Order: sequence, then structure tokens, then C-alpha cells
Amino acid sequence: MKSLEGKNVFVTGGAGFIGSNLVEALVEKGAHVTVYDNLSSGKIEFIDKFRKRKDFAFVKADLLDVEKLNAAMHGKGIDLVMHLAANPDISLGTKVTDLDFKQGAVATYNVLEAARKSDVKEFAFSSSSAVYGIATVKPTPENYGPLAPISLYGASKLASEGYVTAFSHLFGISYCIYRFANVVGKNSTHGVIFDFVRKLSANPKELLVLGDGNQRKAYIEVGDCADAMLSIYERSNERENLFNLTTRDQMQVSDIANEVVNRFAKNAKIKYTGTKQGWPGDVPDTFLDGKKMESMGVKLKFKTSRDAVMNLIDIVAKTRK
Amino acid sequence: MKSLEGKNVFVTGGAGFIGSNLVEALVEKGAHVTVYDNLSSGKIEFIDKFRKRKDFAFVKADLLDVEKLNAAMHGKGIDLVMHLAANPDISLGTKVTDLDFKQGAVATYNVLEAARKSDVKEFAFSSSSAVYGIATVKPTPENYGPLAPISLYGASKLASEGYVTAFSHLFGISYCIYRFANVVGKNSTHGVIFDFVRKLSANPKELLVLGDGNQRKAYIEVGDCADAMLSIYERSNERENLFNLTTRDQMQVSDIANEVVNRFAKNAKIKYTGTKQGWPGDVPDTFLDGKKMESMGVKLKFKTSRDAVMNLIDIVAKTRK
Repeated sequence: MKSLEGKNVFVTGGAGFIGSNLVEALVEKGAHVTVYDNLSSGKIEFIDKFRKRKDFAFVKADLLDVEKLNAAMHGKGIDLVMHLAANPDISLGTKVTDLDFKQGAVATYNVLEAARKSDVKEFAFSSSSAVYGIATVKPTPENYGPLAPISLYGASKLASEGYVTAFSHLFGISYCIYRFANVVGKNSTHGVIFDFVRKLSANPKELLVLGDGNQRKAYIEVGDCADAMLSIYERSNERENLFNLTTRDQMQVSDIANEVVNRFAKNAKIKYTGTKQGWPGDVPDTFLDGKKMESMGVKLKFKTSRDAVMNLIDIVAKTRK
Repeated sequence: MKSLEGKNVFVTGGAGFIGSNLVEALVEKGAHVTVYDNLSSGKIEFIDKFRKRKDFAFVKADLLDVEKLNAAMHGKGIDLVMHLAANPDISLGTKVTDLDFKQGAVATYNVLEAARKSDVKEFAFSSSSAVYGIATVKPTPENYGPLAPISLYGASKLASEGYVTAFSHLFGISYCIYRFANVVGKNSTHGVIFDFVRKLSANPKELLVLGDGNQRKAYIEVGDCADAMLSIYERSNERENLFNLTTRDQMQVSDIANEVVNRFAKNAKIKYTGTKQGWPGDVPDTFLDGKKMESMGVKLKFKTSRDAVMNLIDIVAKTRK
């Protein structure tokens, strides 16, 4: 088993939703962490508590700024790069068509190049179930093909995966690629539950849900997600690692809408726009196979999609009190 | 069956090896062709014979020049974009690490964006067996996964595929993605046979082969490849098309070396560098499943990899007389 204690870990997007939870898990394991984040969606308060530590550094900069990126990594003895930075708003990427390309494919390429130049030998990448597109096999295993993403977010994740595997092979870098289910939990700042709560705040009498309510997705709690990332990293002896990170089931959007309404605005009427997809590029039915992850001994605290979603609803309810 | 007659077809890389053969096939079918090529590896003499035609246009420009690209496509009533431009030198892409990223991922993104802006509704893309990386299933079918390319060329092809499928879904563009075996034949300017002949010209007594000679690859003749592309386009009624284009077998590098030596320098001694790969990023054993292609009624003139390779050796022999 590899240890993270004393390792120099460089986390892109480390002030973001998943990144900040990952940084917390890394710090607990005794890793020295450098967060590289442009704070476009990340928040400084998510990592504030680490900033007084000697073994923690924060660089506010963009991954498209190659000079700053190289300077942040070079000569720092980085052991492991964990690349999480990305545009978090999948539907926005449909309107601003170069957003995911730049923040996804180009950014990942830049991080890999910087890692290569700084002789980093380990790389972890947060990919997504979005690479599968509309999969015909469910639950979808890691070896599913062909991969035909339907969003520019998914395309950018697939592009990034390809560069990770190629850099790995060519330059002797070991990798963990994690394909996330929908991640929910602490420090979350976007997604379906937030949308619902925001809409109900504006109009407590009605909740308009994008889609027909039948979209079903797999959810995973963000702490579980971060723990699974590190635990797979620690336990794997392989150079090439590809894992779905997911609970073993799905939760339906109409079900989430009901739970949110129950909690925040009991009298609200739920209406549906009626389309099959919530938005262009939305995969209405995501269900990932988690057997490979489980075979590594990963155990989730929030075992079902419902557990993970309800936990976020609890968090939001507390914040609003 | 769709007809290409009178269709406005925009071919990137149309002055290149495969591109120029494709343009010939398109012209024969009565398509109006615009070639967009920066002539970095393409050659004007490959398309010279078409330039007097009224229904043919040539634009010498780079795909990274978005302004010229948009101008070349916009308002021209383009029905179908066939995107073939790419860096043809896979091993060079290992040394100049941003070459394939720019000429692959970025260029493809630019072409898709230009097509979207010009309201083009059909897109064809020349992908490669390189997307499969070191596949464990052989012959490798289109639905093989996970895709883990080992060259930056392969990564760029995979990245491009992802953007093609996402643009298709989001903006109502139908697509044909073709994953080529090693393409050989007329207008070829690089590759193993050329390398061998070049080496033998410099030293007719010895041929140093990169690798241990055991690399085995699937080859397809370029005319067959171009015909297969068009024939699948014409015959498919699907919006999403993904096809391996290949013969049904492989030819070993040592076998090719023997044939080249027999033809050009009978007394040369063949030596091997002895590595398993010919170069970093080389996939030593590529064998594609061609059943899907055959199910569309595609028939190859050069039925085996050997037929395709021997045809190129014949062509080279003729040129040297």
C-alpha cells in the first residue's frame, strides 16, 4: 500500500467543490498540498482553514496561464498531481461552446505538460460518467464502448482521458482516472438540488423542473468520493487505473423534487417542462457499475444515491436556518 | 441511399495523402469539392488536376486560423465537411508534444465550430486505430473499451471523436467517424515502406529496422479506404456512424522488410533495433475488426494487408525507375 504521508500533492481546482473535500482528506493523511485554483468557481473560504499550515500552499492562477502553472510546479518536488479543475456548469458549456474546450481539454493538456516538464511521476484525473454519453449497457462498466459523449463537458473529459493515458505511456507517468457519478455534498455550489432550492426561494408556490422528471442518475457523496479517490490510489499497484466512483443505484429527478419540496416549501406545486433531457447535453439515465471500485475495498458511508442526496438536502437545510 | 452528386463537400487536408485520394473519389461521384489545406504535409501537385474544374476550389490556409476557416466555409452552402487534416508523423508528435494537440484536438474543435456556425449538417472524421491503444481484444471491434491511446496522435484522435459526437448531439449534425488501419498507397509520403526505401538508398548494404520485426499491423489501400468512406456515407441512414476501415488481417514488419529488400536491394542485410515498439507511442500489434464495415457492403480491391503493402511497393518501384 502506498502512503500519502509526506507526499507533495498538487491539486488543481483544489478550492472547488470536490477539490476542497479532497484537500481535506489529503491533509488528514499527512500530505503536503499545493492548491492551484483560479477561484472562478472555487471559493477561498473552502480552503481557508488550511492556509495557516506550513505544509499547505495556495496559488491563485489559471491553468491557461502556462508560465504561472510551470512556475508553481517546477522544482517543487511534486510527487502527485491531482487534476480536478474544470468548468462545473455542464449546461453552460452548450451555450459558450469554447468554455469546456479551454477549461477541459486545453487545461488538462497544460497540466500534463507542466507535470512532464517537472518530472512528476503520478497523475490523478477527475473524469466523469459524461464520457459514456447515452450508454446502452447499465450499470455501465469502465470497459464500455464506444464512448460517444453528448455534451462538450463530456467531450472535454474524454479528450483529457486520452491525453492522460498517452502522457502516461510516453513519459512513464502512472495514472488514476476516476469517472464520477453525480457528486453531491459539502461545499457543493451547483446542481439539481441547489437549482430547486433557488427556484423555491424565488417562488415558494411552484417548482418548475427541467425535463419530465424521469431522469435517473447515480449520486455519490463528496466525502465518499474523495476517500475513494485516495483509497484507490493507495491500494493500487497498477500503473494504469480507471475506476467508476459511484453508489450502486440511481435516484429519479421527480423523487428529488418531492424531497426538496417536502423540506423547503411543502405547498409548492411541482411542474415539469416535459422534455426527456433536462437540458441539451444532459444524459437522462446514468447508472454506473461500481464493482471495480468495490473490488479495491472501497466502502461508501452513503451507500445509496438517496443517502447521498438526502445528506445534501440536510446540509442545505442547516445553512438556511 | 444518399447521393454525393452535386453536394458541396469541404475537405480539410484534401491535398494530403488520404485527402487527395478522397477528393478524387468525390470528384468522380460528381461532388463539388473545396479543399482546405495548409500544405504542411499535403502537396499541391496531388490536387493539381482538379484545379481547372469549375466545381473545385482550393484554399491554402491553416485550421488554427479561425478567421480564414470561417470565411472559407461561411455562406458557401457546404453540405458535408470531411475533416482529414492532421499531423501525419506519429513519432514526431512524441518529441514535439504540442504538435498533435494543436493539429489534432484544437484543429478539430475549430472545424466543428466553423461547421456549426455555417449550419453544416453532416460531418465525417478520419480517426485511427490509435485510439484503441494496446487493445486486449483482437480483432478489435468498434465498441472496444476502455480507450487508452498511447501516443499523442491517438489522444488527439480520441479527443476529436469526443467533440464530433458532442457537436453532433447538441447541434443536430450527423457524423461518420472512420477508424483507419494503416493506410498505404498512391500519394503516400511517409510510413514504414518509405522509411525502408530511404534507408536503403542511403546504404544499400544494410536495413536497420526500428523494433524487433515482430510488430504486426493491419493495412488498407488508400483507394479502398476512400471508397469505403464514401460508400458508408452513402449507404447509412443512421445519424451516428462509427466504423473501422481495415483489411481482415495483419502483416508483420519483418515481412515488409524482406519484401522491400527483395525489391530494392537484394543483398542488404536486415538488422533490428530489437525493441518491442518501433518508437515510443507505436502500437506493436494492431488488428481491427472489419465486420461492421463489411456489413455495409463495402468491398475492398486489396483484400489483405499484404495486397495493400505490395501495391505500395509496386508504386514506389515504378517511381524510382
